[in-house]
Amino acid sequence: MAYRAPVADIAFILDKVVPLAPVAATGRFAEATPETVAAILAEAGRLTSEVLAPLNRAGDLAPARLENGAVRSAPGFAEGFRAIAEGGWIGLSADPEHGGAGLPQTLNIAVSEMMAGACLSLQLNPLLTQGQIEALQHHASDEIRALYLPRLIAGDWNGTMNLTEPGAGSDVGALTTRAEPAGDGTYRITGQKIYITWGDSDVTENTCHLVLARLPGAGAGTRGISLFMVPKFIPDQQGRPGVGNSLKVVSLEHKLGIHGSPTCVMSFEGATGWLVGEENKGMAAMFTMMNNARLAVGVQGVAVAEAALQQAAAYAAERNQMGPIIRHADVRRMLAAARAEVFAARAICLACAQALDLAAATGDADYVARAAFLTPIAKAWGTDVGVRVADMGVQVHGGMGYVEETGAAQYLRDVRITPIYEGTNGIQAMDLVGRKMMDGGEAALRLIDEVLEGAEAARAAMPDLAQAVQEAAESLREATAAMAGASMQDRYAGSVPYLSAFARVLGAHVHLLAAREGDEARRLLARVFVTRILPRNAGDLAEARAGVADLDSIPDAALAGAA
Amino acid sequence: MAYRAPVADIAFILDKVVPLAPVAATGRFAEATPETVAAILAEAGRLTSEVLAPLNRAGDLAPARLENGAVRSAPGFAEGFRAIAEGGWIGLSADPEHGGAGLPQTLNIAVSEMMAGACLSLQLNPLLTQGQIEALQHHASDEIRALYLPRLIAGDWNGTMNLTEPGAGSDVGALTTRAEPAGDGTYRITGQKIYITWGDSDVTENTCHLVLARLPGAGAGTRGISLFMVPKFIPDQQGRPGVGNSLKVVSLEHKLGIHGSPTCVMSFEGATGWLVGEENKGMAAMFTMMNNARLAVGVQGVAVAEAALQQAAAYAAERNQMGPIIRHADVRRMLAAARAEVFAARAICLACAQALDLAAATGDADYVARAAFLTPIAKAWGTDVGVRVADMGVQVHGGMGYVEETGAAQYLRDVRITPIYEGTNGIQAMDLVGRKMMDGGEAALRLIDEVLEGAEAARAAMPDLAQAVQEAAESLREATAAMAGASMQDRYAGSVPYLSAFARVLGAHVHLLAAREGDEARRLLARVFVTRILPRNAGDLAEARAGVADLDSIPDAALAGAA
Repeated sequence: MAYRAPVADIAFILDKVVPLAPVAATGRFAEATPETVAAILAEAGRLTSEVLAPLNRAGDLAPARLENGAVRSAPGFAEGFRAIAEGGWIGLSADPEHGGAGLPQTLNIAVSEMMAGACLSLQLNPLLTQGQIEALQHHASDEIRALYLPRLIAGDWNGTMNLTEPGAGSDVGALTTRAEPAGDGTYRITGQKIYITWGDSDVTENTCHLVLARLPGAGAGTRGISLFMVPKFIPDQQGRPGVGNSLKVVSLEHKLGIHGSPTCVMSFEGATGWLVGEENKGMAAMFTMMNNARLAVGVQGVAVAEAALQQAAAYAAERNQMGPIIRHADVRRMLAAARAEVFAARAICLACAQALDLAAATGDADYVARAAFLTPIAKAWGTDVGVRVADMGVQVHGGMGYVEETGAAQYLRDVRITPIYEGTNGIQAMDLVGRKMMDGGEAALRLIDEVLEGAEAARAAMPDLAQAVQEAAESLREATAAMAGASMQDRYAGSVPYLSAFARVLGAHVHLLAAREGDEARRLLARVFVTRILPRNAGDLAEARAGVADLDSIPDAALAGAA
Repeated sequence: MAYRAPVADIAFILDKVVPLAPVAATGRFAEATPETVAAILAEAGRLTSEVLAPLNRAGDLAPARLENGAVRSAPGFAEGFRAIAEGGWIGLSADPEHGGAGLPQTLNIAVSEMMAGACLSLQLNPLLTQGQIEALQHHASDEIRALYLPRLIAGDWNGTMNLTEPGAGSDVGALTTRAEPAGDGTYRITGQKIYITWGDSDVTENTCHLVLARLPGAGAGTRGISLFMVPKFIPDQQGRPGVGNSLKVVSLEHKLGIHGSPTCVMSFEGATGWLVGEENKGMAAMFTMMNNARLAVGVQGVAVAEAALQQAAAYAAERNQMGPIIRHADVRRMLAAARAEVFAARAICLACAQALDLAAATGDADYVARAAFLTPIAKAWGTDVGVRVADMGVQVHGGMGYVEETGAAQYLRDVRITPIYEGTNGIQAMDLVGRKMMDGGEAALRLIDEVLEGAEAARAAMPDLAQAVQEAAESLREATAAMAGASMQDRYAGSVPYLSAFARVLGAHVHLLAAREGDEARRLLARVFVTRILPRNAGDLAEARAGVADLDSIPDAALAGAA
């Protein structure tokens, strides 16, 4: 079945659940009027449903490949990318000074979801490019910004993010790529990077690598890391792609999914680079890019979940086994739970984006903290929902889900990367209970208070649901207090189930808001979420508080199952 | 990392948790002495770890393919199959009259786990053959048994199971394949069958198809179905493969995983077949085969979980990111939970096999009911654990789990079929709360009583764990009573979470038994299961009792996400 961008659902959320109005009320985003927003969502819906979605299967069947050192992208991807670039979508939230539209991140995230739902492999290219634009806007010199930003925003060039090395994954501080001053203000970059998404591309005329590397004598760990711009072709005086740089694609990874996205092993061999930001402060600049990307990856999970669910629901309506299987109680249960989860995860991601916009527009520390707290939740929960719903989609298809021709399995293969990249979901959970609770749990408790207020406001109309949400929020408050008072190792041991429980409470909250503002179908979905999904918090909160002691006591050999 | 068959864990379970002793105490299985069992497990461990496991990757990289209408199996599979056949493993539980060893199904299931853990794609061939042997033993005429059983048991021929058609999957009764009497005691079989595992093979000299088809004038639905033996080559007077039958492999499916297992679309074009069992009673005979296969598929889930967990634990011990990641609290949590789940699921499957053996040896109706009740749990829960643990294995590998070279993703792709085939896990759950509770929940309540007795016996040594298990069992008893009193649609709506909750209570029970009889590591794993996994029952039991009304109220369009 063809993907249809969920324009109506997104518009409803931005109207009633996570309103864009307060964002548009700031001077900075005054252009985000309801009319503009509606027009943008409609046009993004058209582009993604009609132009991009048909490319998805082709990217899986005819993966990107390496020919004579250059990436050949999948059939139709070049045209798809041009349509994205020419529509101005890459710069939707970028600085107008360099050609961006300067619209809210919330809107950009909504559009990103549609692109990723239509074709995840292709969407990764503009996604990484947007992250690079963000990093350059905040950290690069005027010269670099003037040279690179207009071209990246126009989609003439694309951007990549070079962190990982064979021995430095989650531990970025272990990286060994070297940068040596050339004496002319540039640097010579030498080292190998792995897992470089769209590390080369025939859909743009230049690929711009942001590379983390160490200067001579730099300290160990993350404090000795600097960030460099290393373009594939060194721009000439007119800013056109000039001579080739000393870098190459060594190979492409053979992956479980996202076959249309070339994942490159890159070798930098004394390549010419320009410092971005200050020496030894590369991680700060990279974090700008990563935080942006983390939310965007959470949205990818929601996006693929939406696509997989649409297909599963359509299949269930057509497939007859003693009547259409969509009428079978268990199939219906799976679809309803998935629909309720997708709605909740989408609203959580948009709430994170809304907080980012309000933080950017007002500088208010509460919004900054709110966005920071919601980012790991949006990333981990959005991608968990992505995998869960894509897996459900395979199951609803039965045997047809296991053969590749239906595409149900492709959704599962594609989305399975999302809980891994941009920091595994375990890393997100550690971030949540570690860095994001260094305030003693203040940001967490503010969100919980908001949930309690929402439950109170819903009590008259939906007393049983409101009561269940209130109780869940109170259990979460207790768990939050326990978490904030626990040792860091105990926190880490409980971090993943704690994150899940927090996400479900937020999910119930947005469902109550939707039920108050929406139609009967929204009320029924809210009921599904609160009565069928929220009760899973009991199990997660038990584990969140279980500590690390029992885990540490088990011998490694017992985990491995040695005799 | 190389797969090592979990011989010690299986031996411990068969000694202390699900003892083989009462089976060996029956006259029928008197040969299953502790010495024989130990020797068989050790030899199976050697065969699977050393001979079969090295084939697993090759089957994925060089899938079975169709050449001139014949299947060419993956490299090494023919030699692997010969090793299985020559070791006498196919007939381990088969009737000694035709060359089988007549040993308990419990032992056969233990060996099957090791084979599937080593190479799932190859193990499917002897697995289906064993199912056919079982069906022929119970339902075929003396002539057919004398002709086919010795050859199937020796592994000279292999067996398949032909149920599914394009329009008849879970609804087997919708099938349209026709059988017409030829007048000489044989029948002409005409129709198309899909998803036929090992439907053709170059590792044996003949492939024997058991085919469900309709006789002229047969009634609609499952009551008008008969079973036929349709060999690829019609045996000659000496019982050698003679002239080719009128059947062919139309194509092989392109699947998510188990690439080494040829999944065939079969066309029967007036093929010669022999009736097995009575006319119009084909479903009864097929059920023999399916029940056997359902338990065996549950074991496949456990098997792949074991293999994936071994590899993840080994990777976590080697991979350094700020120390070996096996020391990171969340990685340790994932591995410990997986180890506890694998142990529980393995013991549940062996308990089902033990009940089958005791039922076969004694004819006691309680054992029959116990085996029948445990079968859908073993199938659905074993395969759920399989997918969950294989998914965890990918996650522990991080980016290395998403690239195919490590094999972590192969485990996930391979095991993903197991919740689908032999009746989806949704069908298993419907069977559990439908057919298997037509006794008013008696078999369920007997199992729950056994759990309560076990908790009482463990109370002195492990008061907190015993208490938790007792409370979980009592909640399950209440849910069981509610389920037995509910309408069938309400039962079906709650069937999957009910099955999960039941499996966890059984899992906690076998962990308590292991903790009482085993060493400190077993006690620690029991604690992990009871404190971290069993609490998830709260969520499942809430959903098990939620009924169908809310699901039925939601419009289909809301599930699909239409605007």
